Amino acid sequence: MRAVTTSGGGVVVTDRPDPEPGVGQILVRVRAAGLNGADLLQARGLYPAPPGWPPDIPGMEMAGEVVSTGPGATRFSTGDRVMAVVGGGAQAELALVHEREAMPVPEGLGWAPAGGLPEVFTTAHDALFTQAGLRAGERLCVSGAAGGVGTAAVQLGVAAGALVTGSVRSADRRDQVAGLGATAIDPEAMEKAGPFDVILELVGAPNLGADLNALATGGRISVIGIGAGAVGEINLGILMARRARIHGSTLRARPLEGKAAAARLLEAHVLPLFETGRLTVPVEAKFSIEDAPAAYEHFAAGGKFGKVVLTAG
Amino acid sequence: MRAVTTSGGGVVVTDRPDPEPGVGQILVRVRAAGLNGADLLQARGLYPAPPGWPPDIPGMEMAGEVVSTGPGATRFSTGDRVMAVVGGGAQAELALVHEREAMPVPEGLGWAPAGGLPEVFTTAHDALFTQAGLRAGERLCVSGAAGGVGTAAVQLGVAAGALVTGSVRSADRRDQVAGLGATAIDPEAMEKAGPFDVILELVGAPNLGADLNALATGGRISVIGIGAGAVGEINLGILMARRARIHGSTLRARPLEGKAAAARLLEAHVLPLFETGRLTVPVEAKFSIEDAPAAYEHFAAGGKFGKVVLTAG
Repeated sequence: MRAVTTSGGGVVVTDRPDPEPGVGQILVRVRAAGLNGADLLQARGLYPAPPGWPPDIPGMEMAGEVVSTGPGATRFSTGDRVMAVVGGGAQAELALVHEREAMPVPEGLGWAPAGGLPEVFTTAHDALFTQAGLRAGERLCVSGAAGGVGTAAVQLGVAAGALVTGSVRSADRRDQVAGLGATAIDPEAMEKAGPFDVILELVGAPNLGADLNALATGGRISVIGIGAGAVGEINLGILMARRARIHGSTLRARPLEGKAAAARLLEAHVLPLFETGRLTVPVEAKFSIEDAPAAYEHFAAGGKFGKVVLTAG
Repeated sequence: MRAVTTSGGGVVVTDRPDPEPGVGQILVRVRAAGLNGADLLQARGLYPAPPGWPPDIPGMEMAGEVVSTGPGATRFSTGDRVMAVVGGGAQAELALVHEREAMPVPEGLGWAPAGGLPEVFTTAHDALFTQAGLRAGERLCVSGAAGGVGTAAVQLGVAAGALVTGSVRSADRRDQVAGLGATAIDPEAMEKAGPFDVILELVGAPNLGADLNALATGGRISVIGIGAGAVGEINLGILMARRARIHGSTLRARPLEGKAAAARLLEAHVLPLFETGRLTVPVEAKFSIEDAPAAYEHFAAGGKFGKVVLTAG
């Protein structure tokens, strides 16, 4: 099979042996695989795949058709349209995933959006609801609202009845974020636009002070992106006075049962909203898997609205 | 009535008019009132009482007998032994509290421990269970285990089936902390003694880096004391990798319904353990209310084991 492969700080496309499904696994012919910030880090050697996943084939989400099933795998049949968050190896013509980590592709959803759905919607849903406990009527601010997780979070917040503000550095992207149902603001305007019950922080530690200042009593900050920096100052006195909490999380390092549990929540609470057309995956750009180096370059340039997706087959 | 009164950065004892119970309130003849770190801050003008509480009479917890009841107050009768967390005004011969914020004093508990119980056990219970969700079998570290909240938290953790470590700067206090059922350690040894599922941080921001390093995957840090400093550095990358969360909280600023809800939890889950003798309030020193300035000085010197309590009547 052809596979994106990390090489000297970037990626190339190489021939690799076809994988074989083990116990409980399914082999998927990948039709689309989204890019994520973690892929760039991994290419630079900063974010290795967890044990048990291909160490040098990046890709944390994909959609495609089931080619074959391993011993004991009974959830899906050959030809089924599936998608999944994986620990690595998604950016290839074939990928392995445990059947408990896979989900059916919603009726009517194309390959490119399906390939860019699992990681960002699982991440956003987990952060907003499982961690931060977002409820209808609450005020949500998504800090970094134009990217993949940001556009997912804005839509999920709107669908769940929250009052959503999206903070976006690039003025050019604010109309698009507003089109998803959010009030789009410049990050500098955040404190004035608050207070917020939940802040989803996708940018990093430099925003933490402003996040705390914009937080309502009983508020929750969920940190799932630190591209602008991991280390910053925190005033615990404000955290106490606000009776607030800060969550940090990643999906990738979770064990099988963690990824599978998140997939069940997505099946129950998110995929039905794709079938009714309430949610979409904005696809910013598609590249053939053979053009992966160009896709990575496009992704790294930033300022996107939605997902960059590799396609195959 | 005689009352401790803030004055020029310290406290004096003055004559004040007797308060009268309003709707839903009870008037309590105070027999004992614990000192807390917040009282020192308030005396220095740094932590004003929330609106509706006496601005210049400190004291956030007390125990005593009901003297009279205001209109509509039906939970207690004259002569009942009660105790409560209040927003201020506890360090006086008479104090007002809403009946929903008051609790019965457990059978057999003396006045001094009862007067030093409400604030620290409510704070510790709220932080460990309501916020951090501590469960049996989990590993708890109490950072600053020898003080009032620390000794309460160690005992509550042990009673709930957690494996409790108490970190204590003063080597002289470690045997006493161990006597409550904890493994007592020097703060420097924390990372080696971990990982911990829950860390109760009672010292402040300088410990935050060590707390994060000593935290287990899925761990929770609950910050309820910042005497050593409020502002520090945080590495959000570690917070994400640990899939962890940090809570901050205070009791004092909570509205009536918040204090009342916390009091109901204490009645249900903590007071029965005083009646069986499972929990105690270590009283480090008692001072007559007339000696309040000496009590404040003793408290400020630090290195205590348990509570400093003012007594009256």
